[in-house]
Amino acid sequence: MPMTKDPLTSRINTLSLADQLTQMENKSSAFESEVRTLPLPTIAAFTQTGTLAPVSFSPNSHTLTPDQPDIVTQKLPHLFATHQGQILKADTPLPTLTGKRIAVLFSGGPAAGGHNVIAGIKAILGPNNTLFGVKSGPKGLLAGELFEITNDALNKVKNLGGFDFLGSDRTKIKTREQYEQVKLVVKKFALNGLIIVGGDDSNTNAAFLAELLQSEGCTVIGVPKTIDGDLQAGAWLPISFGFDTATKIYAEMVGNILQDTPSSRKYWHFVKLMGRSASHVALEVALQTKPSFTLISEEVAAKQSTLGEIVTQLGKTILSRAAKGLNYGVVLIPEGVIEFIPELKTLIQTLNGLIASHETDLQILILTEKLTFIQSQLNAEQKALLMSLPEAIKQQLLLERDSHGNLQVSQIPTEQLLIEMVKIKLKELKSKAETWGEWSAKELDRIMQFKFASNSHFFGYEGRCGAPTRFDAAYTYNLGLIAGSLTLTQQTGYMAAITQLDHDWQAIALPLTGLMGVETREGESTLVIRKALVDIQSPAFSYFVSRRSQWATQDAFCNPGPIQLWGPTSESLPFTIALNHGLSSLKFRIK
Amino acid sequence: MPMTKDPLTSRINTLSLADQLTQMENKSSAFESEVRTLPLPTIAAFTQTGTLAPVSFSPNSHTLTPDQPDIVTQKLPHLFATHQGQILKADTPLPTLTGKRIAVLFSGGPAAGGHNVIAGIKAILGPNNTLFGVKSGPKGLLAGELFEITNDALNKVKNLGGFDFLGSDRTKIKTREQYEQVKLVVKKFALNGLIIVGGDDSNTNAAFLAELLQSEGCTVIGVPKTIDGDLQAGAWLPISFGFDTATKIYAEMVGNILQDTPSSRKYWHFVKLMGRSASHVALEVALQTKPSFTLISEEVAAKQSTLGEIVTQLGKTILSRAAKGLNYGVVLIPEGVIEFIPELKTLIQTLNGLIASHETDLQILILTEKLTFIQSQLNAEQKALLMSLPEAIKQQLLLERDSHGNLQVSQIPTEQLLIEMVKIKLKELKSKAETWGEWSAKELDRIMQFKFASNSHFFGYEGRCGAPTRFDAAYTYNLGLIAGSLTLTQQTGYMAAITQLDHDWQAIALPLTGLMGVETREGESTLVIRKALVDIQSPAFSYFVSRRSQWATQDAFCNPGPIQLWGPTSESLPFTIALNHGLSSLKFRIK
Repeated sequence: MPMTKDPLTSRINTLSLADQLTQMENKSSAFESEVRTLPLPTIAAFTQTGTLAPVSFSPNSHTLTPDQPDIVTQKLPHLFATHQGQILKADTPLPTLTGKRIAVLFSGGPAAGGHNVIAGIKAILGPNNTLFGVKSGPKGLLAGELFEITNDALNKVKNLGGFDFLGSDRTKIKTREQYEQVKLVVKKFALNGLIIVGGDDSNTNAAFLAELLQSEGCTVIGVPKTIDGDLQAGAWLPISFGFDTATKIYAEMVGNILQDTPSSRKYWHFVKLMGRSASHVALEVALQTKPSFTLISEEVAAKQSTLGEIVTQLGKTILSRAAKGLNYGVVLIPEGVIEFIPELKTLIQTLNGLIASHETDLQILILTEKLTFIQSQLNAEQKALLMSLPEAIKQQLLLERDSHGNLQVSQIPTEQLLIEMVKIKLKELKSKAETWGEWSAKELDRIMQFKFASNSHFFGYEGRCGAPTRFDAAYTYNLGLIAGSLTLTQQTGYMAAITQLDHDWQAIALPLTGLMGVETREGESTLVIRKALVDIQSPAFSYFVSRRSQWATQDAFCNPGPIQLWGPTSESLPFTIALNHGLSSLKFRIK
Repeated sequence: MPMTKDPLTSRINTLSLADQLTQMENKSSAFESEVRTLPLPTIAAFTQTGTLAPVSFSPNSHTLTPDQPDIVTQKLPHLFATHQGQILKADTPLPTLTGKRIAVLFSGGPAAGGHNVIAGIKAILGPNNTLFGVKSGPKGLLAGELFEITNDALNKVKNLGGFDFLGSDRTKIKTREQYEQVKLVVKKFALNGLIIVGGDDSNTNAAFLAELLQSEGCTVIGVPKTIDGDLQAGAWLPISFGFDTATKIYAEMVGNILQDTPSSRKYWHFVKLMGRSASHVALEVALQTKPSFTLISEEVAAKQSTLGEIVTQLGKTILSRAAKGLNYGVVLIPEGVIEFIPELKTLIQTLNGLIASHETDLQILILTEKLTFIQSQLNAEQKALLMSLPEAIKQQLLLERDSHGNLQVSQIPTEQLLIEMVKIKLKELKSKAETWGEWSAKELDRIMQFKFASNSHFFGYEGRCGAPTRFDAAYTYNLGLIAGSLTLTQQTGYMAAITQLDHDWQAIALPLTGLMGVETREGESTLVIRKALVDIQSPAFSYFVSRRSQWATQDAFCNPGPIQLWGPTSESLPFTIALNHGLSSLKFRIK
């Protein structure tokens, strides 16, 4: 076959189609090959000299204050004294720095753009410093599994999703032995700096390691990652990376399902969305797609809603749509909502306690006896709540405990729970439809004729490893430039961050000490990075509230489509971020 | 706020961000607004006069022959005599035709591009003929729910996914009363033509309606739609519309999950893919993403594989990857595979028969007695197979029957079945690992250390209503031009089709009579459009076989990314189609 240009990609191509397909193996599809070549724009501060160069950082005259400074002083004394809460801003270009040895690791679940963080670090370190990758996250750090990162290897993963270049894990470094082990590895590789890419827990770890490793002359910098979107600090940290890509992937899927509903005209789809505690993901996807019904955990908690109230509200929405001939809809459910329903939270805690305190008594009982015994220990309200749950969920609440004796709440299929409960509620609501709405005869007839049919979905893993959006690709590359610059200038205990996302991006560094809050974990006051929940006073949530009754009663949905890496719609920010930061458009502008 | 251009979309914008977001409601997201403006290229035959014009069709000297011509002669006498099996090709431009009244309906599950079929029909009919839309599919046809389609209304759904502009349903028109009802509606609206957009069953319906409505002077034309890809007829019908979009959406999701596996390094993901019987969807997604293990139903049937053999093969693949340190992978499962495993198919048939013939005996028994009784009626092999299944599946096979007394095979969670069975098999395989592989001490150790953790997914509804790919958008618009031209020239009983997808698309028409096969349905020989299964001798399947052992033992996967509507990778054909038709590239070219 003659040498030709592949018409799909304009690359030179002398192969049969079968051989072309084989050449695409191992992340070389047409998409992956083209995405790798997309340019990575840089924040102006890094190109002041005409070429890419690291910069120094200096205080920007703003500070961040932890919730309980006394505890921070006690637990992170060196760091807190050094930081004094000051936020740093990018300053002047640095003279050439050489001979530094820096390591980077991923921690926790993957998020789109991780590879570009490394690309940014590597680019800013240049050829005269050494960058090591830590394999498999904190576990690999403890085991000393480091390898030198080359430009060639890195070019293969540039702009691609996933954390597979290094791998990741969820090991928490917290024991004295672990700290000593990290010190040994730092010494062995003569590291001058460590960059930790992770969420709230991983950045908490980064702060403690920064404190620990000061004595070793090794700095620690954090990079804010999580698809959950709960790592935020007002204007100084508008969002973590990965959130934009994950929510756009979920919005594509939810949009497709919404588009399906008036096409096939017979299903209610219940969609659970990943995101441990906070409902940022559900809110963002709701704003992008406008479904019939969306639960926001933080609102449920603020209103002290009962499960019965939620199910009634949902049932009324379903039948109100049926009254208009809309026998279908989509319900969005945040993964963590169960723990935000006060009565369920209390019930679960009570059950955890009961099961733990009667462990030996329970062992000798058969299944039905166990159930009877536990129920006999509950008060009337709790018993009624338990009895109202579907059988499978009831058994799960009563029987399944992890090795710490706790219920794995994330294992409860909330979407199934709501489907089962709403089925029963619909019968009740139908039987007294006259009492809760002002229906015409025709509408009442439609309500009576309505047959509820449902499907359930859980979108989670699909959204963690997509190729980064143009926003996440640029954001992470620049976070890498910032983290690399901070490390080269021996700043420690900071988180790389970027402000002014709608114009003229600014590189800054946030003192991890200033982001600290205090949580009770396993009975102890523990210093952790504050988790940002959805603020029900925020512009994004208020906007959602102002529109949702429209979305409930009409087909107002959008199908925002697959993420575009080229074309007119490729450069867009998350809706919640644009609203909450008062931007005038969804477009981001780096310069 | 001053009037400005929205920087994201370059549209004029005088609104606050909140108001911009509200303006996006009802399918007006940035993506949807821009996608609507994408051009729809036309096959050269329709622009011979310099503007868009309908064309006449004449025989192209090729024929299509049904499986049993005698039955076709008997059941579709007029049509078969008229067609004589001849395929038609687009010929000369037509003089202006006016005053025709044509109706279009969607039938069955939605597929991407349906709206563009209507756009094509409307464009070719021009302003001097009337196009009606039938609401809610065949059900709406019987009820006479027709409305006139305007250009304004149509412009809002151009290039958008879903069937929501009309709605769809699955009613089969087959009784004498239904036929009479259709005649009445045709008369009432004085229809000259009916265009049915649907799959194999709907096109079978179209043939019978064409035969019926000849006497009414109303023609019937079919348009080939199904995401399943099982409506094919060699070079004359390379693929139905919707397959390309659905498989690219599934490939995006599967690719993201594949990318997640070496990132988090701990999960096997079992992914079931929609597609009733044939495995075209699973094969296409496998070719695009290269997962560790893919079941193809047609191969399972050809090899007469037992469930035990499949589980053993899967278990060995899992442990062989573990031996190399790859503690993760992705398994693709076609939705319909259960019915292709001969022993399971037989068992289900036996159970259906037993349950039907002992219906009254069984009614008086309690659950455990029922199970004991049914099992006592099975032979030893069937009993052993039943006993090998997980408890939940066993109960489903024994107890759940639809109103016709049949098991709803599609309700069986095959992905869970395989997960449960492979868990048990892995223990067995581990215990005798030396006997089935040549492992080094290190590899054996890894096999022993390996812990199997799994997640399951079902991708279906997500893929039916996405915005059409550039291929599906152009393909459906041109199918609409063809269907409209055929109708204007009073051809009847044909299916609109397009050949030569890689260069110079050709508009043709296939006689529905020539596509007919005979199936036994409910005990009777029934004339139906032949369903195309995956040919295990085909180039696409052979290529898959040549590569799959590589994909099983290495990380060879691709993450082909979200569908692009702009940019260098937006104009690509399905891999299976390009391979099976001997194309030299994945790019399609209309002119």
